[in-house]
Amino acid sequence: VIVVLSGSAPEAQISSTIQRLADLGYQSEILVSSEKTLLSATTTGEQDDYSAAEQLRALAWVEDIHIEGRPFKLVGLAPGRMRSKVNVGGVYIGGSDLVVMAGPCTVESEEQVMETARAVARAGAKILRGGAYKPSTSPYSFQGLGEEGLEFLKEAGCRYGLKVVTEVMDVRKVELVCQYADMLQIGTRNMQNYDLLKEVGQCRTPVLLKRGMTAKLEEWLLAAEYIAAGGNEQIVLCERGIRSFDTYTRNTLDLAAVPALRSLTHLPVVVDPSQGTGRRDLVSAMSKAAVAAGADGLLIEVHPHPDRALKDGAQSINPEEFASLMPQLQAVSAAIRS
Amino acid sequence: VIVVLSGSAPEAQISSTIQRLADLGYQSEILVSSEKTLLSATTTGEQDDYSAAEQLRALAWVEDIHIEGRPFKLVGLAPGRMRSKVNVGGVYIGGSDLVVMAGPCTVESEEQVMETARAVARAGAKILRGGAYKPSTSPYSFQGLGEEGLEFLKEAGCRYGLKVVTEVMDVRKVELVCQYADMLQIGTRNMQNYDLLKEVGQCRTPVLLKRGMTAKLEEWLLAAEYIAAGGNEQIVLCERGIRSFDTYTRNTLDLAAVPALRSLTHLPVVVDPSQGTGRRDLVSAMSKAAVAAGADGLLIEVHPHPDRALKDGAQSINPEEFASLMPQLQAVSAAIRS
Amino acid sequence: VIVVLSGSAPEAQISSTIQRLADLGYQSEILVSSEKTLLSATTTGEQDDYSAAEQLRALAWVEDIHIEGRPFKLVGLAPGRMRSKVNVGGVYIGGSDLVVMAGPCTVESEEQVMETARAVARAGAKILRGGAYKPSTSPYSFQGLGEEGLEFLKEAGCRYGLKVVTEVMDVRKVELVCQYADMLQIGTRNMQNYDLLKEVGQCRTPVLLKRGMTAKLEEWLLAAEYIAAGGNEQIVLCERGIRSFDTYTRNTLDLAAVPALRSLTHLPVVVDPSQGTGRRDLVSAMSKAAVAAGADGLLIEVHPHPDRALKDGAQSINPEEFASLMPQLQAVSAAIRS
Amino acid sequence: VIVVLSGSAPEAQISSTIQRLADLGYQSEILVSSEKTLLSATTTGEQDDYSAAEQLRALAWVEDIHIEGRPFKLVGLAPGRMRSKVNVGGVYIGGSDLVVMAGPCTVESEEQVMETARAVARAGAKILRGGAYKPSTSPYSFQGLGEEGLEFLKEAGCRYGLKVVTEVMDVRKVELVCQYADMLQIGTRNMQNYDLLKEVGQCRTPVLLKRGMTAKLEEWLLAAEYIAAGGNEQIVLCERGIRSFDTYTRNTLDLAAVPALRSLTHLPVVVDPSQGTGRRDLVSAMSKAAVAAGADGLLIEVHPHPDRALKDGAQSINPEEFASLMPQLQAVSAAIRS
Repeated sequence: VIVVLSGSAPEAQISSTIQRLADLGYQSEILVSSEKTLLSATTTGEQDDYSAAEQLRALAWVEDIHIEGRPFKLVGLAPGRMRSKVNVGGVYIGGSDLVVMAGPCTVESEEQVMETARAVARAGAKILRGGAYKPSTSPYSFQGLGEEGLEFLKEAGCRYGLKVVTEVMDVRKVELVCQYADMLQIGTRNMQNYDLLKEVGQCRTPVLLKRGMTAKLEEWLLAAEYIAAGGNEQIVLCERGIRSFDTYTRNTLDLAAVPALRSLTHLPVVVDPSQGTGRRDLVSAMSKAAVAAGADGLLIEVHPHPDRALKDGAQSINPEEFASLMPQLQAVSAAIRS
Repeated sequence: VIVVLSGSAPEAQISSTIQRLADLGYQSEILVSSEKTLLSATTTGEQDDYSAAEQLRALAWVEDIHIEGRPFKLVGLAPGRMRSKVNVGGVYIGGSDLVVMAGPCTVESEEQVMETARAVARAGAKILRGGAYKPSTSPYSFQGLGEEGLEFLKEAGCRYGLKVVTEVMDVRKVELVCQYADMLQIGTRNMQNYDLLKEVGQCRTPVLLKRGMTAKLEEWLLAAEYIAAGGNEQIVLCERGIRSFDTYTRNTLDLAAVPALRSLTHLPVVVDPSQGTGRRDLVSAMSKAAVAAGADGLLIEVHPHPDRALKDGAQSINPEEFASLMPQLQAVSAAIRS
Repeated sequence: VIVVLSGSAPEAQISSTIQRLADLGYQSEILVSSEKTLLSATTTGEQDDYSAAEQLRALAWVEDIHIEGRPFKLVGLAPGRMRSKVNVGGVYIGGSDLVVMAGPCTVESEEQVMETARAVARAGAKILRGGAYKPSTSPYSFQGLGEEGLEFLKEAGCRYGLKVVTEVMDVRKVELVCQYADMLQIGTRNMQNYDLLKEVGQCRTPVLLKRGMTAKLEEWLLAAEYIAAGGNEQIVLCERGIRSFDTYTRNTLDLAAVPALRSLTHLPVVVDPSQGTGRRDLVSAMSKAAVAAGADGLLIEVHPHPDRALKDGAQSINPEEFASLMPQLQAVSAAIRS
Repeated sequence: VIVVLSGSAPEAQISSTIQRLADLGYQSEILVSSEKTLLSATTTGEQDDYSAAEQLRALAWVEDIHIEGRPFKLVGLAPGRMRSKVNVGGVYIGGSDLVVMAGPCTVESEEQVMETARAVARAGAKILRGGAYKPSTSPYSFQGLGEEGLEFLKEAGCRYGLKVVTEVMDVRKVELVCQYADMLQIGTRNMQNYDLLKEVGQCRTPVLLKRGMTAKLEEWLLAAEYIAAGGNEQIVLCERGIRSFDTYTRNTLDLAAVPALRSLTHLPVVVDPSQGTGRRDLVSAMSKAAVAAGADGLLIEVHPHPDRALKDGAQSINPEEFASLMPQLQAVSAAIRS
């Protein structure tokens, strides 16, 4: 940690800062130039530099603090660290194959799930998505079928050879959802629900961690760090659009996050172009763009009859559109690997 | 509900829309002008117009939907509805008196809480704030003292005649926190943690609902609606700054939300200028501005020694600053009521 | 125009609205359902529905206004309208070939421009970019070489067979810049400098219109409409990132704008991944993503020695990186056309 | 300037950085701790540290740069510097009196201006606002009366003892507008129109500089610095709302900018609650809040008949509302000075 003190910092402030650093577990060296005084502080212990920095910033005479490294120790990309592959029941995300997860926003009925699963499996999807517990902005909207929905998903997965990813919102339901799902989804609204992160950190089921609506990359990675710190390092990050001033799309899909994360973390990154745009007419183009940006996979909302969907019909594509998109994705994937 | 159909909508699309509306429980009248076809649809049942509209938007030929009224039925300000006063153990928020809640960001020790409580009570605060369970961006930061912190708060409240507000993050801790607190705080990161909202909706303890970091007013009020729908209408809204591009302040305090909410909801509104700015040098001015904008109360971070605070020292004021601010707030409050 | 009146609108308000519409040049039909009164208003003249709507919104009893169509008449994509190709001195943007514009952020010296031009031409770029007049946030930063810079650009273009695009900021310099450039760039800060838009609307030189830092798509297209309304329809739109809360990248590249604009306008769309990310390590991935999203071209900052660049070195790639990127872009372009 | 080098920076990188600093006019001292190497660089010349820093950031091994002080030398608040009062034809902004500027968004007719001027003068406004040249998002909207509008403003100002502030958009019109106006307004869309800033920097007429829609405080102050660097230090800053994700208000009024600017600059700061909210029902509350936050003045849109305004009727208040607001503003102003 480098601490830059205000130019006119008198002796008392310097020693008070050194004392504060010592209390926090740091040893300081004083560096003096003709203009400024700096402290270079190191610790041999397990202190978290970021927590220390937060406390030092409260000192009025501290102008700036420079921290070496990143605050996410487990999920960060250390030199020499290999990229992670996350194993979802035998489907590897983060390897050389693009992994497509597809399915309805919301599980509405057994028939709907089966019809969708059959179609997406045939087109080459490996993982079935679908919400049994739905976070709805309004308490009067459909909240999902609950455990019955989980059963439909599991059955459809078995029948069509798909793994299942589904959202869990409530810490008390984590165990239950683990019985049905091959991968747990943490939704955008719960990215900083720390008790939930800690709970899934205790599981051995892989986690799909969606980016919070206005999460900075560092905040997102720290959310992943919560899960990893609990012992579960099977984490896939999912970019799903951030909130901006623009109203034409539902969210602003931040594809630059994909290559940015590749230099920050060893975790795989997938993209959700459905939530990320909110418009079915943009899903195809943004899926291809995500693959070209280097995404390890995609999460796409597919509904047999988007016009009759209970939720998010406006951003769902139908099985025919999905089937014609898949070879295009493979072509782009091949092009960037060539 | 008024549904505007695309100008060239053929007969089949019109009748398909009417059928879809009927499935959703609506009766339609067709309105035809020389240029457009519209449907005016009404329901005698309990259908939620907003859920219906979401589904209709998935129809490609539906151009626009106009909904009468607001989606938050319980917390909305219906004509003739009186403004609510929320009773926090005998302290009324939403009445003619400005209610100031003050205390440390985080409970650090018994001594710290007692010292702060004594000082803020003497200066005229009515409610003590302080975090026993702390949402921290990093898993390596201090997470709060837990139940021991709750005990310190309760004891300090008793000793100095203050009510206590403190955050609850975990659905499994709601009952416990209710034993110590006079008011439950839902933090900004949990504004859309729907299971938590439902859980506090089952309580009879008043709730302080902070605005999500990028919540639109409507989303915030729908979060309140979740609590109210559970049976707990003792809700106070707290504006705490939204996320914007500007980095000078930690958040952008959206004071226009205060008068805006007065025309949308009957619930009281308070403002947190500490989180809302992240800078102690702005707390005084923004507290006065919040009162002038019509806030029913304030939530202010006060720490006996901000320089040594474990968290948020940079945005905490000390007891002397707080004591000198209080009469100024009363002066502004008097000025706008004169 | 459909005007939705408040449910309880009395006769006097209805007739006052009809009168106001008549003053604005509209004839109204009254549509009455059991719940609402609506007005369907049409005009035979040249009235602009959007201006009319703005004025009607000031009436307290007007709840909602629905407008048919889009406010950008000339640049909008009318049914049956072919996509435009913009002819930049024989290089067509908007056709089947991807057009790459490359060069330094700022013209620094004749040698720098020549060296860059030779390299980018050899790698397959068709248009040379470079700033002779530079918008700098600080008055103390380098403001560009001015006319001398224009001369270097023109000479380099001639020598290496490249067309030249360069920014014009001052209405009084438009004529001068037209003497040197094949295409005029309007920068992000001037997207709503209407006098400048009108001035370039009088030219016959093609215009590259960058998106304003927080321009909605509609605002951007209306800026293009200003140019088109002046008589110059040779316009190319350039997505260059919008401002968001995230600080990891300099801007948030909104690639969804690319397919979105394809359904809104007949104008070609190119992408600037250099400004759009502010980081050279992201330029390659985002260039490929832009092509996959359907961009007609790219604008890439290339500097012979990014480490010594006067401006934007952090987001410039060097000629070797550019040369190795070009075939990858062609591969992606081929993949999405296959 | 303190330059933090990457921990593993070899000798060659250190000396290359020192050489680069020397080229930029800086002398370096090397500071070495057990973990890091830093350079402390000083200049005796007129170099701009911010421009230097931008260039150094392009060096891959430079991790961080710390700059002493602020990049706005003329408008910054140096220690001991008195706050500026700006003299608008004898009306001082920045002194102990709150200065209210009021009038219509757009000059529509002589009658409208006279009627408004008489009313706002009687209620205590000191400066008349009104647009003769209007920046309109659409080319088909009313663009203002031009010079005729300036004449009406000047005449109204003379008749009712008001100074006049009006917008100038075109560098070629600055001289003309100066003949009629006591103060030149630079609108939000032109905050970074540097040629215009330079042009008004050559005038001796005071300037009202509105904040750009997404300008950071530093960018705004650098825009002011452009004007000051030209020789015109008679500048008043006007907060008018920033763009955010929220759609309830037209803009998000960032009142924290008011106290923040007081610690950054000696220039006076006023607030525009009309543009800042876009809703007439919020103007009164936000005017009072602005005064409580410490604003030196207000800019309020007043129209004799908001329902019939050509522009911005939805955010204009009528003369009666204005007259009843003025004493409330004085009461708040008195309260915070007591």
